[in-house]
Parts: sequence; C-alpha cells; structure tokens
Amino acid sequence: MKNYYQKPRRILTMPYVTVKMLEGRTEDQKRNLVEKVTEAVVETTGASKEKVVVFIEEMPTNHYAVAGKRLSDQE
Amino acid sequence: MKNYYQKPRRILTMPYVTVKMLEGRTEDQKRNLVEKVTEAVVETTGASKEKVVVFIEEMPTNHYAVAGKRLSDQE
Amino acid sequence: MKNYYQKPRRILTMPYVTVKMLEGRTEDQKRNLVEKVTEAVVETTGASKEKVVVFIEEMPTNHYAVAGKRLSDQE
Amino acid sequence: MKNYYQKPRRILTMPYVTVKMLEGRTEDQKRNLVEKVTEAVVETTGASKEKVVVFIEEMPTNHYAVAGKRLSDQE
Amino acid sequence: MKNYYQKPRRILTMPYVTVKMLEGRTEDQKRNLVEKVTEAVVETTGASKEKVVVFIEEMPTNHYAVAGKRLSDQE
Amino acid sequence: MKNYYQKPRRILTMPYVTVKMLEGRTEDQKRNLVEKVTEAVVETTGASKEKVVVFIEEMPTNHYAVAGKRLSDQE
Repeated sequence: MKNYYQKPRRILTMPYVTVKMLEGRTEDQKRNLVEKVTEAVVETTGASKEKVVVFIEEMPTNHYAVAGKRLSDQE
Repeated sequence: MKNYYQKPRRILTMPYVTVKMLEGRTEDQKRNLVEKVTEAVVETTGASKEKVVVFIEEMPTNHYAVAGKRLSDQE
Repeated sequence: MKNYYQKPRRILTMPYVTVKMLEGRTEDQKRNLVEKVTEAVVETTGASKEKVVVFIEEMPTNHYAVAGKRLSDQE
Repeated sequence: MKNYYQKPRRILTMPYVTVKMLEGRTEDQKRNLVEKVTEAVVETTGASKEKVVVFIEEMPTNHYAVAGKRLSDQE
Repeated sequence: MKNYYQKPRRILTMPYVTVKMLEGRTEDQKRNLVEKVTEAVVETTGASKEKVVVFIEEMPTNHYAVAGKRLSDQE
Repeated sequence: MKNYYQKPRRILTMPYVTVKMLEGRTEDQKRNLVEKVTEAVVETTGASKEKVVVFIEEMPTNHYAVAGKRLSDQE
C-alpha cells in the first residue's frame, strides 16, 4: 500500500473531518473545536494544515436516538 | 437554543467524528489520530471522553479527485 | 473474518443507523421510526439495544432530485 | 411544513437508510437486517416499500474508536 | 469484478450523488446543478436518468473550516 | 442569506461531491465521471474548478437493497 502523506504530492492529501454533534455549542466552542481538531490531524497524519477541512453537523434532539429513544423524548 | 453539553444529560451527548483521508497512514498514525482528535473534542466541547466516537474512512487514489482529476491520474 | 457481534466485547459493537428522508413526518412518526428501526437492528444483528444509535436527517424538497429534477420543481 | 408522505407524490418519497456497523455479520444477518429495517420504515413513515433504499457500510475494528481507543487496540 | 451497469438489471443501478456546498446559491443555480450533474453521471456511467438521485447539502459558514479556521471567522 | 460564490473569497468555496454507486465501473468511466461532474458543478455554481472535490464510493451488491431485498439476493 503506497504511503502518500510523505510524498511531494502531500499537498493534495486533504483529510476531511466531519464532527456530528447535538445543537447547543457556543460559537467559541465551535471555533476552538475546529482549531484543535485540525492541530490533532496535522500532528498525527503529517498532512499540511492548509489541506485539513472540518465540517460541523449539528443534530436537534428529536433527530438523535440511543436504545430506541430520542433525546427529545427523554426530557 | 438549549445548551445540552452542560446539562446532567451530557452523558448522552456523543460527538461523532468521521476522518476521511487517503489510504497510506500507518497503524501508529491512526492510533494517535483517534486519541488526539478525541482529546481535542473533549477539551473544546465539554463532552465526556467515553462518549466520543471516531470513524476512519480511507479513500484509494482512484476514488478522490480535485479540479476534475483523480489523484491516481496525476501520478 | 472475525465475528464480533457474538463476542463478549459485543457491548462495544454499536450499529449506527442514519435515516435520510423528506421533511414532513410528524413527531409521532419519528418516535415510532427510531423505536422500530432499533428493534429491527437488534433482532437481526445481535447488537444490544443500548448500543444502537439512530440519526434522522431531513431533506427539503428543493434539495432532493430524481432523474435530474428536484421534487420542488415537480409541484 | 408540507406533509409529503400522504400526498399522491408519495411514490417519490424515498427514505434512504444507511446502517454503519462493524465487519463480521453473516450474509443471513445482512439479508434479514435490510428486510426488517425496510419493514420498520414502511410501517412508521408511510413510505411505499419499493421506495425504501438501505445501504450497509462495514467498519474494520482498526477504523472505529470509542473514548480515544480503537477496537483493534482493545483486543 | 462483475460489471453491472451494462447488465439488464441496470435499472436497479442507482448512482446517488451528494453535493455539499456553502449556503448562498440561488434556486436557479440549484435547479441547473442537479440537472447538469445528472446528465454528467448518465453520460459517463451508463446509468439510466430515472435512477440517478441527487442530494444537496448546504453548510453555513460557521460550520465549515479550512486550515483550522472557520469561513465565518475569516470575514 | 449572504451569497458567497460571487464574493472574492469564492476561492474558499469548495463544493464537495460524493458519488455513491455499485461496484463495476471501469477506470475510464470513473475518470470521465469526475471530470464531467466537476464541469457540471463549475458551470452551474460559479465555483472555481480547483476548488471542486469529488469522492467516489463503491457499494458491493450485498450491501445495497431496494424494497427490502439486496441486489445480491436478486441474482
């Protein structure tokens, strides 16, 4: 299996990170989240910072269920 | 908008992180990746460590394209 | 290929189900949906109920197209 | 919010279900899984059976982590 | 590897296309987008037009980051 | 709603396209697919070609079901 992250073409090696979580975090938390997650990815995969993309996806509590019950139905 | 991460039900607040990247990282890199990304999420969102889930999704170079060209066609 | 669902570590074997559908279902329908889908997954995969996670993702009709035409453009 | 599942255009109302789980289920389990999940969706959303699509996505244990540790590193 | 797109069962060979992009495109752009993308998929994969599904997913600028910075924090 | 695709920061407006389809297309088909889809996105959204990313995700027939039946069980 070729190892691309160290090759000169590393510039094209873009890790894409999606963080799916409940609604409710503040803008400061989201700002820090993408910053720290990007640092973690760069530090451990060798990808360059400019090539790391982070998407945040928020869930309302009526669209998230564990053990057959939605969070909104547990309140 | 209710703020859930500080509420007692925080235990159910599971951020789900998907890291999509090119094939080629070593098992050590992947081990460190999930550890560091989890730390970053806990530190910035207030979620408890046990509730953070990380998925890794690897892409072969013939299934990833930028500017209309696959990485495999640029080698 | 190892068979994990029967092993003692089954507790960590969390099937994640995402249901992507058009906007418009009632809260009762969504409540029943996550319950019945969870039952179906437990019954057929051997996963424990507490470990089954269901996400609902709703689509507006202007973001869903079949045969090149959006549902919103067919009304 | 318009309620589409009861309208004549219901035929176009295709719920898409993705089940993401660890590798290791048998073909019989997967066969039963898609059947039972489809039934659950039809029963609770009113969608017609022909319009329900199910995708199965399997994860190897080295690409799935909870609490910062991959399942493959817990064996 | 079996080649399905040419087989009689091609009717069931439904490519599913998800376009994830920033909020801000007009309805005309989205209408043209799904039409042209569907044409491109039909032309190059041999799938029949009725079987091509396109989902649009829009991102707000505070949920999209490159190089550790959200677009909303760059304005 | 701000309209970003025309603003100078358009360079950061990267549409991400995921094409999920059955295994079986040839490398030529995949090469043409990403090229034509990229053209379609550029033409209709105003994004610059260098910023369009395309992911291909292939499904085996035993992981894809319509109307409760997997394609592999219909052969």
